[in-house]
Amino acid sequence: MAQFINAKENLVTEAIDGLLAASGGALSRLDGYPHIKVVFRSDWDKSKVALVSGGGSGHEPAHAGFVGKGMLTAAVCGEVFASPSVEAVLAGILAVTGDAGCLLIVKNYTGDRLNFGLAAERARALGRKVEMVVVDDDIALPDLPQPRGVAGTLFVHKIAGAMAEDGADLQAVTGAARTVIAKVASIGMSLDTCTIPGSSKENRIGAGKAELGLGIHGEPGVEQVDFSDAMTAMTAVVEKLRGQSGGDMVAILNNLGSTTPLEMSVLTHGLTASGLVKHIIGPAPLMTSLDMHGFSVSIMDATATEHAALAAPVAMAAWPGMAQVVDPPVVGLPDGLTPIEPIASKNEKTRAIIENVAELLISAESQLNALDAKSGDGDTGSTLATAARALKSSLDRLPLADLTQLFPALGNELSQTMGGSSGVILAIYFNAAGDACANGASVQKALVDGLNRVSQVGGASVGDRTMVDALSPALDALPNGIDAAAAAARAGADSTASIHRAKAGRAAYVPEENLKGHNDPGAEAVALLFGALAKEMVD
Amino acid sequence: MAQFINAKENLVTEAIDGLLAASGGALSRLDGYPHIKVVFRSDWDKSKVALVSGGGSGHEPAHAGFVGKGMLTAAVCGEVFASPSVEAVLAGILAVTGDAGCLLIVKNYTGDRLNFGLAAERARALGRKVEMVVVDDDIALPDLPQPRGVAGTLFVHKIAGAMAEDGADLQAVTGAARTVIAKVASIGMSLDTCTIPGSSKENRIGAGKAELGLGIHGEPGVEQVDFSDAMTAMTAVVEKLRGQSGGDMVAILNNLGSTTPLEMSVLTHGLTASGLVKHIIGPAPLMTSLDMHGFSVSIMDATATEHAALAAPVAMAAWPGMAQVVDPPVVGLPDGLTPIEPIASKNEKTRAIIENVAELLISAESQLNALDAKSGDGDTGSTLATAARALKSSLDRLPLADLTQLFPALGNELSQTMGGSSGVILAIYFNAAGDACANGASVQKALVDGLNRVSQVGGASVGDRTMVDALSPALDALPNGIDAAAAAARAGADSTASIHRAKAGRAAYVPEENLKGHNDPGAEAVALLFGALAKEMVD
Repeated sequence: MAQFINAKENLVTEAIDGLLAASGGALSRLDGYPHIKVVFRSDWDKSKVALVSGGGSGHEPAHAGFVGKGMLTAAVCGEVFASPSVEAVLAGILAVTGDAGCLLIVKNYTGDRLNFGLAAERARALGRKVEMVVVDDDIALPDLPQPRGVAGTLFVHKIAGAMAEDGADLQAVTGAARTVIAKVASIGMSLDTCTIPGSSKENRIGAGKAELGLGIHGEPGVEQVDFSDAMTAMTAVVEKLRGQSGGDMVAILNNLGSTTPLEMSVLTHGLTASGLVKHIIGPAPLMTSLDMHGFSVSIMDATATEHAALAAPVAMAAWPGMAQVVDPPVVGLPDGLTPIEPIASKNEKTRAIIENVAELLISAESQLNALDAKSGDGDTGSTLATAARALKSSLDRLPLADLTQLFPALGNELSQTMGGSSGVILAIYFNAAGDACANGASVQKALVDGLNRVSQVGGASVGDRTMVDALSPALDALPNGIDAAAAAARAGADSTASIHRAKAGRAAYVPEENLKGHNDPGAEAVALLFGALAKEMVD
Repeated sequence: MAQFINAKENLVTEAIDGLLAASGGALSRLDGYPHIKVVFRSDWDKSKVALVSGGGSGHEPAHAGFVGKGMLTAAVCGEVFASPSVEAVLAGILAVTGDAGCLLIVKNYTGDRLNFGLAAERARALGRKVEMVVVDDDIALPDLPQPRGVAGTLFVHKIAGAMAEDGADLQAVTGAARTVIAKVASIGMSLDTCTIPGSSKENRIGAGKAELGLGIHGEPGVEQVDFSDAMTAMTAVVEKLRGQSGGDMVAILNNLGSTTPLEMSVLTHGLTASGLVKHIIGPAPLMTSLDMHGFSVSIMDATATEHAALAAPVAMAAWPGMAQVVDPPVVGLPDGLTPIEPIASKNEKTRAIIENVAELLISAESQLNALDAKSGDGDTGSTLATAARALKSSLDRLPLADLTQLFPALGNELSQTMGGSSGVILAIYFNAAGDACANGASVQKALVDGLNRVSQVGGASVGDRTMVDALSPALDALPNGIDAAAAAARAGADSTASIHRAKAGRAAYVPEENLKGHNDPGAEAVALLFGALAKEMVD
């Protein structure tokens, strides 16, 4: 599977340099590439207890993404899924440890324990005060006395980080870290394995299956379970975690890599609805496993002090903060959603105009459909005829004597009966015209205002091969009489036959040659309409 | 492809409820499910200009994830990739718009323009002041007069959001939004299409290819290009963006869905090294396209005012903040990484002990290998023999007269010659013992301290079927003489034959029946060693 990487041997160093380049100077690194990859706080003055973590890469943002005030002082990064060397860890310790000493926060993998452990010895031999804690939060394998360290490590980073920032001494920070580790529990589920750069993906999870209790290095899950949906997946995870402890439970909901934000929110819904936890950190990618399509939940029963440490704000973008779990607050719908039914009124002249226009559109159905077939899906005539029939049948309900009310009423009627884009465009047109009328505009000005709004919303101007090409000149000419307007509409509609490149509407996707010599059907409809109105005025 | 969702028809509402449940009460929604899905600020008092955005779902965290103080007032969410209805948008507008009015920020898609546009008209008819801007930042299709709205929309959200929060009026906010829109440019690249929930994935991108200039709704990219690596991918994108404008360029580096944090950091390295931009927002998932494996870059030339608006902090976890692009700061390696070579010194008795122990281990090679073959990979004897040979040849270089120096020197020698876990464990052992000696401990106490440290780092205690089972009782008995220690070591080693479940080390992964009746090879080596020392004392 292709990935956005370059040479595999530069993968981690390039990623670190990318992180640093986008950190605004907040992060520095030691000059030890490629062997020594240590990221640390640029503002660090060694006056407080230093927190050093790290391990194999491929778990980003862990650990370098959590280096900053209030969390880690330094992260020692190995290659993908490989422990950093003793020398690299030692370099990290020596770079950041002052008189207050240093706490190493290590995930429970043999390589990390040994390499961090020996580095600690060597740092002690050089006179540094160094303590080490090992995080073993994975509950996937209940019988193994050496559970793995997974996303629950973030609880340790955050709580120890807040304490160290507050000036606690090494003993206090170490003790607090051990207390947290003793009560953190984590378990995850995945629908797909991860892709190790340079290797092909192991497709060991069959269709309809998921792995429960997975590690973060591509190792198989403890069991394959049937997968049906997000809710049962989250329920299975929650059931494993239930009974770990009670009280003020805090959860970390971790994205293992390529689970989408939408899925993570659905999983959040499942977790928060389960009643397991009172506070939540995430959902977010925190301790990933490359592109694994899965999630993990880590929980701990936090004391008030630990709670305050978890809640303390930090500037690192990778830390999502902690929030209280709430029932989603629901507010009643506002008034005004249902259009007020206008009071019907009579005006014979207006009624006659609408009836005639409607008849015209009904009679032009085939002609306009045929035109539309050249540039679209051939339904312009039918769409307009359907609307015209509905309009005719609604005449008794319309406020015909009051244009300010009639315009929006026509708009609402058309949007409900026409459907699709055309209905919405005409609804915008008549609503905007009604708005202008209500503000004292003349009929002609109101119709121009409506057109302007349609142009703005729909994005079409004169020359774009739409109904605007006929309507705009017609409205401009209207002060000179309906005959002038009809003539302008006709000229505008006919001009569309020579516009070979539509810039808006569906015809924008039609090859030029299909458009040549044919009027745009919307513009043609407008021309027919003005022609009929002009004839009516004469009659 | 399986996904963490439940019934498709509840996908978006469940995701919204998950977002709200984890927002700590900061977000509310309207009571209009399933048709009306509007998320808005719980703390909103309508005293300032309201910003309403939204559109189809599947782009999370956009748009609901950016609702909060300093960005959006409300997000109107459609189904996946489908515009919300006019009624839903109208409900959003009416819910949050006070006398200061409302700005609709709409991405340039026909459905969104029309539905937001008509909702705006209906809100105006109800007396609300409503303006609308359309974001069209996509430069993938240079000739299309209606470019799509993609991740550059975030620039508008952030700048308009900061201005509205500062109390700017509707005209000023709208004008600023239009100014931003005019100068934002975006383009993306993807290695794989997105998986629309309930549909199978369209595999239209062949091996070795990528799509440049893609949309965010699964529509094909403008061109398929050859894909080789991250750097050429980013270069292709940067070349498209170069010349858009100059000055103080700001970039948004957007994860389109399933690109890993590691890949995004590699891409960040490419973008920041290109010199295109001076500030960067991200990398982060901001405007995703479900699980699309790709990224996009959006740029704008920001004025000082716009810059300040982009930099203004907001509380939403989805917003990654803006940072200055810097050359990764590099700091020299600390002193102390190279172990200080001890000054050689002579002590015949110590020399003899080491020589004899070494000879013993060399002669026991086959015996220990055979034992190890029962529970491991059969190399314990060879590993120890190799180390013993190296130790013998280093005798002239060792500080034999000074135990405080000799212990760490032995540790460093063993870690360099043995390799693997065993070398690190013995290095930890001897370094810790040397540390204890330096602090005034007796030899026996120093050796116990070393063992304690090894137990802590390696995680093995008595009863775990490791060398600790022989070494611990031997050291405990040492004050009673070397014979007592040797006897205790022998008893301890023999006890491992009845430990059928190893709890640490490699034997933890070996079936119980393979372990029955065989001593642990590490423990046996310790017993042999103490036996030889006891014999030597007698001789």
